[in-house]
Amino acid sequence: MERVVRHFQEELGQLQSRLLAMGGLAEARVRDAVDALVARDVSRVDRVLAGDEPINDLHIEVDDRCFKLLALHQPMAADLRTIVAAVKINTDLERVGDLAVNIAEAARRCLMHPPVAPVVDIPRMGLIAQRMLRDALDAFVRRDVALAEAVLAADDELDALKSRLFRELLAGMLADAQSIEPALDLVLVSRHLERVGDHATNIAEDAIFLVSARDVRHLPAPPAAQ
Amino acid sequence: MERVVRHFQEELGQLQSRLLAMGGLAEARVRDAVDALVARDVSRVDRVLAGDEPINDLHIEVDDRCFKLLALHQPMAADLRTIVAAVKINTDLERVGDLAVNIAEAARRCLMHPPVAPVVDIPRMGLIAQRMLRDALDAFVRRDVALAEAVLAADDELDALKSRLFRELLAGMLADAQSIEPALDLVLVSRHLERVGDHATNIAEDAIFLVSARDVRHLPAPPAAQ
Repeated sequence: MERVVRHFQEELGQLQSRLLAMGGLAEARVRDAVDALVARDVSRVDRVLAGDEPINDLHIEVDDRCFKLLALHQPMAADLRTIVAAVKINTDLERVGDLAVNIAEAARRCLMHPPVAPVVDIPRMGLIAQRMLRDALDAFVRRDVALAEAVLAADDELDALKSRLFRELLAGMLADAQSIEPALDLVLVSRHLERVGDHATNIAEDAIFLVSARDVRHLPAPPAAQ
Repeated sequence: MERVVRHFQEELGQLQSRLLAMGGLAEARVRDAVDALVARDVSRVDRVLAGDEPINDLHIEVDDRCFKLLALHQPMAADLRTIVAAVKINTDLERVGDLAVNIAEAARRCLMHPPVAPVVDIPRMGLIAQRMLRDALDAFVRRDVALAEAVLAADDELDALKSRLFRELLAGMLADAQSIEPALDLVLVSRHLERVGDHATNIAEDAIFLVSARDVRHLPAPPAAQ
C-alpha cells in the first residue's frame, strides 16, 4: 500500500512537471509571436504558425495522465482537487497555444503593410501576459496564494494597457486611412494578449481555490490598482 | 450497494440537467446580446451586462457537483469520463456567458454611433453559434456522435461568415472614416461569436471522445465545406 501511495505521489509530481513544461512552451510561443511581429520577421511568424504540435501533444498527454490518476488511484480531498485543477489548467494552456497562433495570424496580415505608429504597448502587454502565465503556474505548483493574487492584480494592468492601445490605434485609423488594416490587426493582437492574461487568471484562481478552498471566481472585482 | 449505485446515477443525471440548464442560459444571453445590438435597444444591452449572476452561480454549483461525485463515488470508466467532460463543459459554458457580456459591451459602444451598413451576417453568425451550442450539449447528453460531428462542420460556416463580414466592414471603414469606430466593435462582436462557436466545438469534441474514446482534437481539419 505504501508503495502504491509513493507511486501515486510520483505520478502527481510528474503531472505537475508536464504542466510546467507545457506552460513554458505556451509562454515561449506567445513570446515568439509578439517578438516576430515587433521585429517584422515573417519567417519567424511562420515558424509560430507551423509549430503548435508539441503543445497539442502535451495537451493530450496531460489529459490522459489526469484520467489515469483518477481511474487507478481514486484520490481524495487535496489530491483530487489537484487533479481536477490540472484538467482545467491543461485546457487553459492549450488555448494559450492557440492564441499564439492567432497572434501570428494577425501578425502575418499586419506585416503585409508598412509599419503603423510605434506600438510599444504590444510588447509590454506581451511581457505582462507571459509573466502572469509563469507566475500562475508557479503559484499552482508551489501552492503560493500571494503569488496567485499578484497574477489577479496584474490582469488590471493588462486591461488598462489594452484600453490605452485601443484608443491610440483608433486615433491613428481616424487620422490615416492607410493605417486601418494593419491597426485592426494590432487591435486583435492586443485582444489575444488580454485573453492570455485571462487564462493566467483562471489558473491563478484555481491555485487559490486549491490552497484555501476559497472560491474567488465571480467575486466583485476589487477597485483597480491605479 | 445497489441503492448507492442508483443514487449515483440520479446524481449524474442531475449533473447533466444542470449543464443543460446552464447551456440554455448561455445561449439565451448570446441571443439577447445580439438581438439587442441588431434592434439598437440600449436598455436590453444593459440587462445583458447586468445579468451574469445566474450563470456564474451555476458554474460554481456544477463544479461542486462534479467534485462531490468524484470524491464520494470514485466512479470508473464511462462515468468518470462523463464527469471529467462535465468539468470541462462547465468551463466552456461559463466562458460563453462571459462572451455574451463582451458582445453587450461592444454593442454598448457601437450604439453610441449612427448605424453602419446593414450587417445581416452578425445575426446570422449569432444563430449558428447558438445552434452549435445547443446541438453540442444535446450531443453530449444523448451521446450522439453524428450530431457532434455536425457541430464541428458548422464551425467552418461560422468562420467563413466571420471572414466575409471582416472584409465588408474593412471596406466600409476605408470608404468612410465615420464608420471606423462602430465597425471596429462589430469586428469584435463577430470574433466573440466565433469564440462561442469554438466553445461549442470543444463540447462537441468532448462528446465524441466520450462515446468513441476517439480523440478528434488536434487532427488536421477536413477540407472546408464549400
